[in-house]
Amino acid sequence: MLTTSKRANTIIASPIRKFLPLMRAAEQRGVKVFKLNVGDPDIAPPRLLFATIKKYHQPNLGYAPSPGISEHVEAWAAYYRKFKVELQPANIIPTVGGAEAILFSLLAVADPGDEVIVFEPFYASYKAFAAMSSVKLVPVTLRVENNFALPAAAELEKKITKKTRAIVVINPNNPSGTVWGEKELQSIIALARKHNLFVICDETYREIVFEQKPFSILRIPAAKQCAIVVDSASKRFSAPGARIGCVASLNADIMAALLKFAMARLSAPTLEQYGLIPLLKNSTGYTAKITAEYKKRRDVVFSALQEMPGVTCRRPQGAFYLIAKLPVADSEDFVKFMLSEFNYKNKTVMVTPAADFYMTKGLGRNEIRIAYVLNVKELKEAMDILKRGLAQYLEKK
Amino acid sequence: MLTTSKRANTIIASPIRKFLPLMRAAEQRGVKVFKLNVGDPDIAPPRLLFATIKKYHQPNLGYAPSPGISEHVEAWAAYYRKFKVELQPANIIPTVGGAEAILFSLLAVADPGDEVIVFEPFYASYKAFAAMSSVKLVPVTLRVENNFALPAAAELEKKITKKTRAIVVINPNNPSGTVWGEKELQSIIALARKHNLFVICDETYREIVFEQKPFSILRIPAAKQCAIVVDSASKRFSAPGARIGCVASLNADIMAALLKFAMARLSAPTLEQYGLIPLLKNSTGYTAKITAEYKKRRDVVFSALQEMPGVTCRRPQGAFYLIAKLPVADSEDFVKFMLSEFNYKNKTVMVTPAADFYMTKGLGRNEIRIAYVLNVKELKEAMDILKRGLAQYLEKK
Repeated sequence: MLTTSKRANTIIASPIRKFLPLMRAAEQRGVKVFKLNVGDPDIAPPRLLFATIKKYHQPNLGYAPSPGISEHVEAWAAYYRKFKVELQPANIIPTVGGAEAILFSLLAVADPGDEVIVFEPFYASYKAFAAMSSVKLVPVTLRVENNFALPAAAELEKKITKKTRAIVVINPNNPSGTVWGEKELQSIIALARKHNLFVICDETYREIVFEQKPFSILRIPAAKQCAIVVDSASKRFSAPGARIGCVASLNADIMAALLKFAMARLSAPTLEQYGLIPLLKNSTGYTAKITAEYKKRRDVVFSALQEMPGVTCRRPQGAFYLIAKLPVADSEDFVKFMLSEFNYKNKTVMVTPAADFYMTKGLGRNEIRIAYVLNVKELKEAMDILKRGLAQYLEKK
Repeated sequence: MLTTSKRANTIIASPIRKFLPLMRAAEQRGVKVFKLNVGDPDIAPPRLLFATIKKYHQPNLGYAPSPGISEHVEAWAAYYRKFKVELQPANIIPTVGGAEAILFSLLAVADPGDEVIVFEPFYASYKAFAAMSSVKLVPVTLRVENNFALPAAAELEKKITKKTRAIVVINPNNPSGTVWGEKELQSIIALARKHNLFVICDETYREIVFEQKPFSILRIPAAKQCAIVVDSASKRFSAPGARIGCVASLNADIMAALLKFAMARLSAPTLEQYGLIPLLKNSTGYTAKITAEYKKRRDVVFSALQEMPGVTCRRPQGAFYLIAKLPVADSEDFVKFMLSEFNYKNKTVMVTPAADFYMTKGLGRNEIRIAYVLNVKELKEAMDILKRGLAQYLEKK
């Protein structure tokens, strides 16, 4: 028998996308579905992105250099300087979205069977990339009731074994919206240094912070050797379809390893590297604008949830997600109900069951993730429908 | 000590790119370098590619669906129909270039420590992708003296162990330019079926064949379950910077595995998927034109090499590469000489030492790969310079 690899079999289908058939069926019945399930921004990117791409005038469309088109890499360096992070071009490699940066980071630090610590709940694609690279993710559970605070160092230390190679920190966090500050990062770095671990810090949502200033772990001097930053242009410029991110580190050995992977896959897309140059060089106006917008939405979602009986959540400080604990036994069943049985005036809401953002079995079963990627008006309506849907679901049970 | 992973350390830097500093130094001395080292086509892509991308008028640049934009996938299906291959959309996943298709194929069939058979010389990036996926490549040596003919089944069978999961066939071949016909593919498929192996068939250069008609392994009924095709828009449309390829198979389990990897990385670039739709739907005019051009170049390179004393090569039948055995002990030293010491009327030639296209130590040491990515006039001049350089190098030794 021809069989696929074990690692392929261990990956579960994306939690975000597996309800698509139910959603399509609802739409075919004429039900409008408010989509709060995917982190695909509804906001348009700066027009300059398209304008720059359209100005591309070379007759050929050759490979970009594997370490990136030099003006594009310089633009990332200029971008980081705004956050008081000094990087040379050799410290940055543009990647095919943040996704490739995650995969490359795991491959650079860990061999098959090695362990990497993650704080759950976490962005579910890490599980697939860990499976692809045969790396074992070791979860440390954070809890909504505790505002997703990091555990004490002693608690974290219990998870470190001889096989541990790195700690992953997604900050600002997808899916919880938590933002850890310099002090918390300092304590993770101290632990990493004590145990010779890398810190893979996913800063995809860097600027989307509502009460703090944007920060990068690369600003912390002690992180110089251990930190690897996963970055992306997708969210801060509302351009996930451009498939441009980067991986950055001040550790020369890590950069040498990453460059080998980058050379194997030849290059990140040429047109989008050009298109993003002016955006990276002059990012703050746009990111401030969208952050103000997401903050308004955060307030809408958070206050609506506060009014729903039995719902527990904490006010997210960044990104555009929120984890809410519902008074249900199985949020997957609730999501199915919302798409298949419920509608209010021919409208319903799609959210993501949170279980797949956890590694530990049973956790997140009564939680959902809400991505606030609709404008305030629609979001208010969607939250009202969610409230009605939840009430009807609880009545039925 | 913080150290990078073993798998990163096993990858050697790309053979194609490691002479770049020497090349730049030559150019800084005012020496014109004819570049026959990288498979980056000098020919422009169809204008329709840029025109279509420029017509993109949506305000947003969202993720494409992980299994591809449906019109783009349909365009691949229409493209394959021209070669009498019937595929449903579910049999095709667009990838970020052929590179991602290679990585996904290895991950879908093999776990760490599993073995995959390759015919050497072969496209060197496979080594890096094998290292990244912790898969062991097992080489079967083909020889220029034997016109890179495949070995008898019994010979090949000696390499098959309990850990063997697949056979890789790059057809038309990079770097040798060999094209294996239906009969040869049939015998590989028979062997694969006998031993429960997959056949990963890299058909990046499908149409660039000079004496045969373009063919795909997917046309062979016996390949239905075992074949996985790695494909790319990069060479046939002279658009490697678009980073679009695909992976195709009639095996539903393989497609399910590949889709999981595709979902983890979210999507291939949106704009380029749109841009390639009209090219895929109507490909043959352009590919016939460039193939005629490459054929002329093949003739120029091949006949020039025939006139160089001590050089052995066979007439390539496809792609735009050729492996030539030189009367030198170390082709790497020769390439360095051409870039650092030699010039003829302030011009020189850059080719790729072939050793890195082999796994077996010592093989290819006296061979080079020539990529004929210059027009006929320049190519004639470059071959003349190569001849003079080789003569001077041999004299010096």
